[in-house]
Amino acid sequence: MATTEKLISGQTVALHNSRESCWIIVHGKVYDVTDFLDDHPGGSRIILKYAGKDATAAYDPIHPPDAITTNLTPDKHLGAVEPDTVEKEEIIITAEEIARQKRVDSRPPLSEILNLHDFEAIAKDVMHEKAWAYYSSAADDEITNRENHAAFHRIWFRPRILRDVTQVDWSTTILGQKSSMPLYITATALGKLGHPDGELNLTRAAAKHGIIQMIPTLASCSFDEIVDAAQPGQNQFLQLYVNKDRAITKRIVEHAEERGIKGLFITVDAPQLGRREKDMRQKFEAEDPSEVSKSGQQSGVDRSQGAARAISSFIDPSLSWADLKWFKSITKMPLILKGVQCWEDALEAYDNNMAGVVLSNHGGRQLDFARSGIEILVEVVTKLKEKRGLTFPNEKFQLFVDGGVRRATDVLKAVALGATAVGVGRPFLYAYSSYGADGMDKALQILHDEFEMNMRLLGARSMKEVVPEMVDASNIHTHIVAVPSDNLYESNYERLQGARLKELQAKL
Amino acid sequence: MATTEKLISGQTVALHNSRESCWIIVHGKVYDVTDFLDDHPGGSRIILKYAGKDATAAYDPIHPPDAITTNLTPDKHLGAVEPDTVEKEEIIITAEEIARQKRVDSRPPLSEILNLHDFEAIAKDVMHEKAWAYYSSAADDEITNRENHAAFHRIWFRPRILRDVTQVDWSTTILGQKSSMPLYITATALGKLGHPDGELNLTRAAAKHGIIQMIPTLASCSFDEIVDAAQPGQNQFLQLYVNKDRAITKRIVEHAEERGIKGLFITVDAPQLGRREKDMRQKFEAEDPSEVSKSGQQSGVDRSQGAARAISSFIDPSLSWADLKWFKSITKMPLILKGVQCWEDALEAYDNNMAGVVLSNHGGRQLDFARSGIEILVEVVTKLKEKRGLTFPNEKFQLFVDGGVRRATDVLKAVALGATAVGVGRPFLYAYSSYGADGMDKALQILHDEFEMNMRLLGARSMKEVVPEMVDASNIHTHIVAVPSDNLYESNYERLQGARLKELQAKL
Amino acid sequence: MATTEKLISGQTVALHNSRESCWIIVHGKVYDVTDFLDDHPGGSRIILKYAGKDATAAYDPIHPPDAITTNLTPDKHLGAVEPDTVEKEEIIITAEEIARQKRVDSRPPLSEILNLHDFEAIAKDVMHEKAWAYYSSAADDEITNRENHAAFHRIWFRPRILRDVTQVDWSTTILGQKSSMPLYITATALGKLGHPDGELNLTRAAAKHGIIQMIPTLASCSFDEIVDAAQPGQNQFLQLYVNKDRAITKRIVEHAEERGIKGLFITVDAPQLGRREKDMRQKFEAEDPSEVSKSGQQSGVDRSQGAARAISSFIDPSLSWADLKWFKSITKMPLILKGVQCWEDALEAYDNNMAGVVLSNHGGRQLDFARSGIEILVEVVTKLKEKRGLTFPNEKFQLFVDGGVRRATDVLKAVALGATAVGVGRPFLYAYSSYGADGMDKALQILHDEFEMNMRLLGARSMKEVVPEMVDASNIHTHIVAVPSDNLYESNYERLQGARLKELQAKL
Amino acid sequence: MATTEKLISGQTVALHNSRESCWIIVHGKVYDVTDFLDDHPGGSRIILKYAGKDATAAYDPIHPPDAITTNLTPDKHLGAVEPDTVEKEEIIITAEEIARQKRVDSRPPLSEILNLHDFEAIAKDVMHEKAWAYYSSAADDEITNRENHAAFHRIWFRPRILRDVTQVDWSTTILGQKSSMPLYITATALGKLGHPDGELNLTRAAAKHGIIQMIPTLASCSFDEIVDAAQPGQNQFLQLYVNKDRAITKRIVEHAEERGIKGLFITVDAPQLGRREKDMRQKFEAEDPSEVSKSGQQSGVDRSQGAARAISSFIDPSLSWADLKWFKSITKMPLILKGVQCWEDALEAYDNNMAGVVLSNHGGRQLDFARSGIEILVEVVTKLKEKRGLTFPNEKFQLFVDGGVRRATDVLKAVALGATAVGVGRPFLYAYSSYGADGMDKALQILHDEFEMNMRLLGARSMKEVVPEMVDASNIHTHIVAVPSDNLYESNYERLQGARLKELQAKL
Repeated sequence: MATTEKLISGQTVALHNSRESCWIIVHGKVYDVTDFLDDHPGGSRIILKYAGKDATAAYDPIHPPDAITTNLTPDKHLGAVEPDTVEKEEIIITAEEIARQKRVDSRPPLSEILNLHDFEAIAKDVMHEKAWAYYSSAADDEITNRENHAAFHRIWFRPRILRDVTQVDWSTTILGQKSSMPLYITATALGKLGHPDGELNLTRAAAKHGIIQMIPTLASCSFDEIVDAAQPGQNQFLQLYVNKDRAITKRIVEHAEERGIKGLFITVDAPQLGRREKDMRQKFEAEDPSEVSKSGQQSGVDRSQGAARAISSFIDPSLSWADLKWFKSITKMPLILKGVQCWEDALEAYDNNMAGVVLSNHGGRQLDFARSGIEILVEVVTKLKEKRGLTFPNEKFQLFVDGGVRRATDVLKAVALGATAVGVGRPFLYAYSSYGADGMDKALQILHDEFEMNMRLLGARSMKEVVPEMVDASNIHTHIVAVPSDNLYESNYERLQGARLKELQAKL
Repeated sequence: MATTEKLISGQTVALHNSRESCWIIVHGKVYDVTDFLDDHPGGSRIILKYAGKDATAAYDPIHPPDAITTNLTPDKHLGAVEPDTVEKEEIIITAEEIARQKRVDSRPPLSEILNLHDFEAIAKDVMHEKAWAYYSSAADDEITNRENHAAFHRIWFRPRILRDVTQVDWSTTILGQKSSMPLYITATALGKLGHPDGELNLTRAAAKHGIIQMIPTLASCSFDEIVDAAQPGQNQFLQLYVNKDRAITKRIVEHAEERGIKGLFITVDAPQLGRREKDMRQKFEAEDPSEVSKSGQQSGVDRSQGAARAISSFIDPSLSWADLKWFKSITKMPLILKGVQCWEDALEAYDNNMAGVVLSNHGGRQLDFARSGIEILVEVVTKLKEKRGLTFPNEKFQLFVDGGVRRATDVLKAVALGATAVGVGRPFLYAYSSYGADGMDKALQILHDEFEMNMRLLGARSMKEVVPEMVDASNIHTHIVAVPSDNLYESNYERLQGARLKELQAKL
Repeated sequence: MATTEKLISGQTVALHNSRESCWIIVHGKVYDVTDFLDDHPGGSRIILKYAGKDATAAYDPIHPPDAITTNLTPDKHLGAVEPDTVEKEEIIITAEEIARQKRVDSRPPLSEILNLHDFEAIAKDVMHEKAWAYYSSAADDEITNRENHAAFHRIWFRPRILRDVTQVDWSTTILGQKSSMPLYITATALGKLGHPDGELNLTRAAAKHGIIQMIPTLASCSFDEIVDAAQPGQNQFLQLYVNKDRAITKRIVEHAEERGIKGLFITVDAPQLGRREKDMRQKFEAEDPSEVSKSGQQSGVDRSQGAARAISSFIDPSLSWADLKWFKSITKMPLILKGVQCWEDALEAYDNNMAGVVLSNHGGRQLDFARSGIEILVEVVTKLKEKRGLTFPNEKFQLFVDGGVRRATDVLKAVALGATAVGVGRPFLYAYSSYGADGMDKALQILHDEFEMNMRLLGARSMKEVVPEMVDASNIHTHIVAVPSDNLYESNYERLQGARLKELQAKL
Repeated sequence: MATTEKLISGQTVALHNSRESCWIIVHGKVYDVTDFLDDHPGGSRIILKYAGKDATAAYDPIHPPDAITTNLTPDKHLGAVEPDTVEKEEIIITAEEIARQKRVDSRPPLSEILNLHDFEAIAKDVMHEKAWAYYSSAADDEITNRENHAAFHRIWFRPRILRDVTQVDWSTTILGQKSSMPLYITATALGKLGHPDGELNLTRAAAKHGIIQMIPTLASCSFDEIVDAAQPGQNQFLQLYVNKDRAITKRIVEHAEERGIKGLFITVDAPQLGRREKDMRQKFEAEDPSEVSKSGQQSGVDRSQGAARAISSFIDPSLSWADLKWFKSITKMPLILKGVQCWEDALEAYDNNMAGVVLSNHGGRQLDFARSGIEILVEVVTKLKEKRGLTFPNEKFQLFVDGGVRRATDVLKAVALGATAVGVGRPFLYAYSSYGADGMDKALQILHDEFEMNMRLLGARSMKEVVPEMVDASNIHTHIVAVPSDNLYESNYERLQGARLKELQAKL
């Protein structure tokens, strides 16, 4: 190593193993994190577990590589650790992990994966429990999370016949950029939880299939890693959590514009990240309950809040309409508000010269009982027509929807109702979490197949022909709950029994 | 003992062990209850079980301490029992009780309790069966009971974005008194069934968290015990069942006003307490069936009616609008009618100068197929606007709702629709029944957390900003039942099966 | 025996055991049924099983005592059998019957029966399988059968408060006759299948509780037996299936009027009795399948059609509006059409001077997807107001409803919507099938208790105060079926799991 | 053999067992398919499995007899195989097949089959897995497939009474031809998968019962075989997939007209056959997964697409309205468009002088979330009345519906709403797949019985009396999905438990 960096032995590091003096090793560098303990978004406890030790394996899946250097002042960068002086942690492979590995080996061949649901089924079986809990969890009772998918089921098709559908074309233009499908990869955090290559899996598949990736603020890979991985001419967007320190935000935005980012999606539905109880509960069950109860009282940031809270404390809850002018002043990138949930705010965004809005409830991870994006779309299209004479899809003010998409038919419903494109998140995470880069490639191939088929069956040869008359969405606003069941009546009712084979009759 | 009280030996008491002469011991005092047997609201049988014995353990959980002294004339107070002369009942700890104790020991640490549902899940496991049956049961087929919760699911949010939500404040004012949340602890009977401290658990937590407790007429603790337990400045309401003997009611009301009670909630939905069959059935199963069938014919009050009937025979079914003037004449406390279920009666209450109404169906414990309070709220707000020009929330005529609340989002829906505050009952009983005072404290802490989160996500910085436009309640009046299922068709349909791991395929 | 009746030995009878010469013994009398074989509504096969033998045990539960004498000409009445000459059939008590008897012995004491559902639960366990199948079965997929109950669940209450409900009175007047409740015992066939006393169980309980019994044409007891069992002053109605031979019908009607029947309910929804597949399937399973398949081809009347078809071939499918005048000409009894299913026919009935109509689909036993009586009621009340200015309940033209009633609240909903009274059928069959006469007595007592309770809770002191404003029936016409479920999505969704006891966590 | 056909020994054929030279034997003839391998719609792999061998057993169930001679030029017809020189394949009867045969032997006698559902239940048990998968599968999540049946459940009857229904007649006229019922056998592919006689089972039963069969383009039997099997005077229709090569189509149409076909149903909803994942997945599971994954990459046509894709590559996706004139020019047969799914296209068909349209979504096998035919019917009748003044049923422009029919009541609902007749497909396949020709006969007998019964109960004596007022279809357009369930609340709710026998109580 050619620099003057100081070399520190593992034994020395090992002495600093307490709250009073806490050093850790990450990627071969030694850091003094004693003063940082209480500022750690994930709480002090998780750091103390690695006090005096090598924390790289735990650090990697949930931090971008530069997180530690950005957060610690240079004087806390103590130097490099002397090679081979760190005591090797005996790696104990748990019975659970062995079972998980066996499940990984039992995955069906990729050729048997027929749809996006299938990736999720396999991912649930082969992912680390914590990773699955983090990706799949949603707010409170997860009503909105499931409603996102269910809402598409209230929309039905009115296909047209006897049109020459030999050639069908489902490519489109999103914020002025070509896309081979009317969808984009939306931003989701902590991509390495599912696979060591993290978000790069998405970047590579996006390049191959000609679609656009939205880079998340909370990526596991660094922003530059992801941009560097793009092919020449490949377009990317950036999702932005606005920092309490606007200087940091300014730096990020300007850097993104320099690196060629084609659209800035400002998240507006997360002044505070939601409680995801499935994620929180998973943590308890994975650890020693007695310790949990003790530590619950001690640490400043309650570790029990799960990964989401841990990584998000920097987000500014004071962000407001007034800030939008400032954004316009620091960048020429198109600005889109991500997380709009009623027509009033969509109108406000339009009047504030935004380039569009994403009608989204954050995948059901924020406010439970928030309505689905596809439902809000119907309201927004109606009202912006009424108030400003707009028609959709609209080049000048584009509407996007995300949440609950699993089939090309879901996307086509959104387009028919006025969306320019649809964001897809979790299904792609599950695709690469279950089968790596090949999985993500296959996922996009499946969508292409579904688009081709369904465009033909709809009688639409291009996105322009996917029109409102092709869907019946008249029940989109119907939120019904059946009258609670009459358990006594039902337990008395003897279900009708059809014809059965003779031995079955004998058995019963 | 300095009084002149007579001392009676346990042996003497033991001689009076029959219907002809029945003495019992309660808290060390001997009472002659022979003449009272047929007047006992709970039936004679349960007393005769303790004839000649110490009945304290059975008496305590369902009677306020002064119940026996109030109901027996002084000449039936025979004196104190001589210490150490009562034959100790051999306490047989049943296998069931041992199992229950084991379940108590297996409770997860309180830090793992994430929401109000969790208390209920634990309470169901650790409570005495009878106590659980009494708390959880509701009328007839329990349709209304479940509808109370389900109705909230027909209301969805329309959150607003880009408002500075750094500071959010969910405190409010209820009948002129400060409350740290837009909810109060509503009245529920027999608090000691769940925990020896009974209603005092609620009093203490209310003090700590700055919310208001409504003291029930049918508390296990005496009214004065509960008032005495309050902190200086702590506000309490009183729930009132009106006695057939108005002199008793007058005494209660005047005493309450003297003790500083801030609002009188007159229950108007219970001229007779409802049949709660789950409670009734539990009783049969817990006892010897042959005895039950015999006694069923004998006792004047059918013991099989469960705890609710036993304790409520004094309630006056003749209570009517005409009585309200009398109430105004005996107290200056704000008068609120608890149990209003249609706009016509809410209007009548307003015209009778009430301070407000609680839109409630008594937790589903009275008339089955009564509508939920949250549904009635929508009707009342609309009609009182139409008929009297009122808008809500309204200082002069306050609307409250109770029944089915489990999340802060439920409360916020009610506030958005015009309620001043919401009553919460069973969830708090379950909180202290499962974890005592700490449980109740935690329950309120959870609600605070949920309010903070959801106010931010709604874009509302104070109760004033929680407005009707923030919810879509257009399906609130929809009571649908699905067409009965086609069992033959469904048993023929083979559910679609997704990708599976290979060994699973082999197994099937 | 004082008559000149011929005595025939059992040995002689036993010789006539074939299709060529078939004699049977019923109640000690010998009949030659050779020529009758092909006319037997139940098919020849079942008779041939008893050729040359005593058929009494099989005959009794499904025939009125006089059926055989009515159907055979006197010359086929061969005489009495010589006592003690009939070879005793060795009675083989099957394992199934022993198991059933054990279940009978395990019935909970009657005091534990809390509602009408409970009788059904016990009856299902203790009845003979065939009897249960006959009583419980309904047409096709039994959709209408279950809809009858479900429809009540779409109607919700709007109770009133602060009315003096010390005295509540739920008695009423039906076709000019007093009834202690707004309900009557409707006609159901083959009462002895459930209990040896058959319909007399109903007669006796009706007397005790002051309600009206409608005697069925297809009773197991004879009409006169049932009328004879009535107490002085006890009122009864008659349900009539109109015979192809109007002379028979005339005789029945005139006899009924003579015996004091107070109303004639002409069944109009059964020109042919419905296919009840549960009943039909039960038959196959109870017999030897190979024989069934053979005989299926042979007998003229397909025995596989179940009991309903067997006993109903006399019903006249040509009955029409024109016949009503004839009925008016032969009787002064009030005439009611039973089985009206739309407002057009209710109007026609009114214009034809009927005394009323029963809005009914025959307990779901005829046309599947016929609507429930309670739903039709709403339509009839609206349209007859519109077309003829009628209001309901109406003395001159009374509306009745039957089907699906299990609670007094169901009855009160019907009354609120305009019905004079409601018919209850199966629940009473189950009451006496499970507990005999005591069961039927208890069933009515339960209903009285429910009426008292619910009248108080509704704030209605008499039937007159049970008004339309007390119910919300706005969803009564909503027949919805949920969109078929997304099995792949749902199998991927991991249900939210609440707090659990520790050992449970360990186990999972 | 009298021809000059060359004789080839089995040994010689066996040498040509590779991709380089591939001969196969079908029905005793030898064919060189080497050059055809890549053109085979089913992929090369399946042929190569039989390279050098006798492929007859695999060929038969999915190809009409003349498929191979039509597709290969004469020079590839190499001659006949020398008898007894082909090595007998050792037929290995798998354990699965033995189990299936046992299930076949355990079928209940046909007399126990009570309705069309029953055939399906038995067919599911006794069919070959692949055949079941092909017949039962549908597109994507099979939502539309199940909706087809469910939609009928949103339609309820309004029956009329007191009409003389002694005689009821459910015969009708379809495209000018008599039919004993208002239904026809619609076209379904690959009839031999379910039974060796394939479509001939349908032809024979149609003759016996006086109904019309629509012959499918993709029949397993050849068109002429099916026409030859018809009785004198028996009417048949033809379903047509239009070939990319119009000369072939012209030949088919002209031949059909010559052979007396009475109506030409041009399929317009299948420019590309849908993905049926159940069918596709079945294939994977039936084969060695490792081979599947390998071959997935190699063959040009992905064999994993299932039978549907394999046999349909000839269908022309460019078919358009402009082609209809050409059809009019080549045939005098009535032309009907099969697969119309909105009123706009029905109107267009009318304006193009079609004889009618089939409102159909291809049994749910094409576009998922396409609406049911019965729902589209309501829209078409309303709009064609509005736009062209048409009333229905209409001789000049007939409306047909297919999909989801299981009961005569389903058919009657369609007729009441304006359909001339209804197409029934899968139920008849299941009828003969489970019981051969007798099953199909019984299926039609059951329908006759149901029609007779339900016409009587509806009060309709002929098809003319089955009118719109007899149904309530007001909810037909309601596509609702319940709000996702609250799992935590529901797991806490303790279901009400009714009375139980004592030993059951003890057990719990």
